[in-house]
Amino acid sequence: MQHPHAASRDQYATGVTAATASLLKRLRAKAPRVHCVTNAVAQNFTANALLAFGAVPSMTLSGEEIGEFVASSDALLVNLGTFDRERREATAIAVDSAVRHGLPWVLDPVFVDRVPQRAAYARDLIFLAPKALRLNAAEFGALAGEKPSREKVAAYARAHNLTVGLSGEIDLIADGERAAAVGNGHPLMAKVTAMGCAASALVAACLAVEPDAFIGTAAAMIMTGVAGEMAAARAQGPGSFASAMIDALYTLDEQTLVDHAKFEMHR
Amino acid sequence: MQHPHAASRDQYATGVTAATASLLKRLRAKAPRVHCVTNAVAQNFTANALLAFGAVPSMTLSGEEIGEFVASSDALLVNLGTFDRERREATAIAVDSAVRHGLPWVLDPVFVDRVPQRAAYARDLIFLAPKALRLNAAEFGALAGEKPSREKVAAYARAHNLTVGLSGEIDLIADGERAAAVGNGHPLMAKVTAMGCAASALVAACLAVEPDAFIGTAAAMIMTGVAGEMAAARAQGPGSFASAMIDALYTLDEQTLVDHAKFEMHR
Amino acid sequence: MQHPHAASRDQYATGVTAATASLLKRLRAKAPRVHCVTNAVAQNFTANALLAFGAVPSMTLSGEEIGEFVASSDALLVNLGTFDRERREATAIAVDSAVRHGLPWVLDPVFVDRVPQRAAYARDLIFLAPKALRLNAAEFGALAGEKPSREKVAAYARAHNLTVGLSGEIDLIADGERAAAVGNGHPLMAKVTAMGCAASALVAACLAVEPDAFIGTAAAMIMTGVAGEMAAARAQGPGSFASAMIDALYTLDEQTLVDHAKFEMHR
Repeated sequence: MQHPHAASRDQYATGVTAATASLLKRLRAKAPRVHCVTNAVAQNFTANALLAFGAVPSMTLSGEEIGEFVASSDALLVNLGTFDRERREATAIAVDSAVRHGLPWVLDPVFVDRVPQRAAYARDLIFLAPKALRLNAAEFGALAGEKPSREKVAAYARAHNLTVGLSGEIDLIADGERAAAVGNGHPLMAKVTAMGCAASALVAACLAVEPDAFIGTAAAMIMTGVAGEMAAARAQGPGSFASAMIDALYTLDEQTLVDHAKFEMHR
Repeated sequence: MQHPHAASRDQYATGVTAATASLLKRLRAKAPRVHCVTNAVAQNFTANALLAFGAVPSMTLSGEEIGEFVASSDALLVNLGTFDRERREATAIAVDSAVRHGLPWVLDPVFVDRVPQRAAYARDLIFLAPKALRLNAAEFGALAGEKPSREKVAAYARAHNLTVGLSGEIDLIADGERAAAVGNGHPLMAKVTAMGCAASALVAACLAVEPDAFIGTAAAMIMTGVAGEMAAARAQGPGSFASAMIDALYTLDEQTLVDHAKFEMHR
Repeated sequence: MQHPHAASRDQYATGVTAATASLLKRLRAKAPRVHCVTNAVAQNFTANALLAFGAVPSMTLSGEEIGEFVASSDALLVNLGTFDRERREATAIAVDSAVRHGLPWVLDPVFVDRVPQRAAYARDLIFLAPKALRLNAAEFGALAGEKPSREKVAAYARAHNLTVGLSGEIDLIADGERAAAVGNGHPLMAKVTAMGCAASALVAACLAVEPDAFIGTAAAMIMTGVAGEMAAARAQGPGSFASAMIDALYTLDEQTLVDHAKFEMHR
């Protein structure tokens, strides 16, 4: 099963793992501000995940203030959970502010598989050039019209000129030119609300310090997965897991990342 | 103090305890979707309680989406905490959708004892035929105009054609024909915000898999109480208790329920 | 470095520490109701902190209900995080209700350093006579136009006829006549979202049982700091710290306060 370029691919994967460790260091040094338009269920956990990771969260939605909050931030997250008129108005201003200030922004199209109009709205947002799209298989299916596979995810990323970070038992990352898989993570992650939302916020934090969105997205997903494994080792269920996850994001160090990352380039 | 029908009553109680254990199994197999109109303080804890229990929560309030969310759910919770215009509009659409699709819905009239117009609104909602009403003594007093007792709770349930689940040191459950008490629980449950709100969501989850609302409500209250006892055994205060409660809902098994349930039929 | 009045100052400090211990007892006996206009990120943690401390939180924002909620409360908190139109309208009614009923209210001007119009709004609110203003150095700078120092904080408190509680490595408390420092606390407190917001809610809870706002604010900041130290001793990161903090507020006792308080009068 060895690809002709397997050796250089393995080398690249090792490089991404090293880049992840260095990115964590840069992130903690910079303490980037990440503004989040996110759902009511996820706000607290997302803010704590960002703080533990080394970033500075803000969550204001008011149309009168959000433009300035984004302008003084380093990255923006737009998460479509509990979407409503207030969040729709906030998103319009926030994305406009991000685009004008050249800030990276990340889209997390929560539950687009449950309501067609939310999927249509997400498709419109994708025209406003998010750097990364983090989602799960059901959400990918609703946006792309087909179940995700390595090839479909890569094709979608290429067609929309963004990096896709697809969460699942194996995470897939693709930007149209590169594709990879992350094998880290733990089943308890699916039993805590807002875990995916927080992961998307960590992608935004990584893009605040890493211009290569493929590397930034891969780094965030590796770190989230490794932290999940560390947390699961201490947890007695999803309640203690959630708080151990925040601890793990805080104590995560470069050596642990290098030792535990399961990252593989696909081509 | 033995009632002439004490033996058959005890047998029925044993049957409810067994039904609770089997309901938990069915619930985890089905993973019912529970849509929640709930208060801002309770959203995160409620979502985590539902996930730990084996259900799939959604929390959208937007009038444009909530009808479809409810239509693709298996049960609905309406909780009146932090009630506002958005939640009032959401509730109208959500309850209408639940009624049209024949889904069970549960009302939790939070803090109706603090504001008369909220009590009036709750009384209006009760005309829309919730299957169960979960509340505490002060809230019962505000709705029924008198302090709860076994007889008053049974009379209220009969008059309004629903199941009442009244939380307290001893929980009372009544549907007009049957009445029972649950002795499980722990005082720390009253020191964690949203504990009652989450319990109401678990009632909704149980009604998603159990057509007999008396059995479903009793099962939810037994399971909440037993989980509370398991959590208290590990807790050092209400903070660690809250996360241990989520763990306990996740690890709850049929044998533990049968061993720990304190359930008694009143007639 | 001994001040001529050092001895009486030390005596006063010892008196405040004793007053703190007695205040905690009174607070738990009264279980004051504290209504909170607070941000979406902080609502759950703030409610749990208040419950653990011995108070009864409510969080409704609806203009139709908030006046009555405040009227039946013992203190009000206004926190400017995630401020929006709904919170602005709620604040107008809530503060009016507090003033009319003679209830103490506390202002926490979150993130006024990020948006000039939020600072302007906070300045307007200060004309409505909050008893205490709890904030951090950046927020003080945005309101006062200069970095905080012992003198600046005291001058600001005097000019605005309120008690300032400034959080930092060393907390400063001043009411224009008296000034003090609290040396309790732990760096993990800055890594948990809503920790400052919860501290402000505890100030409101203390003012509900203590008419001297300087003493009440000092007591809340001492207790928050001591609880933070107790929590840190058990924590493995900010996730477990947050839940240990709630435990510590619940288990805090008078002897621990007397033993651990680091309180110093400045004049």
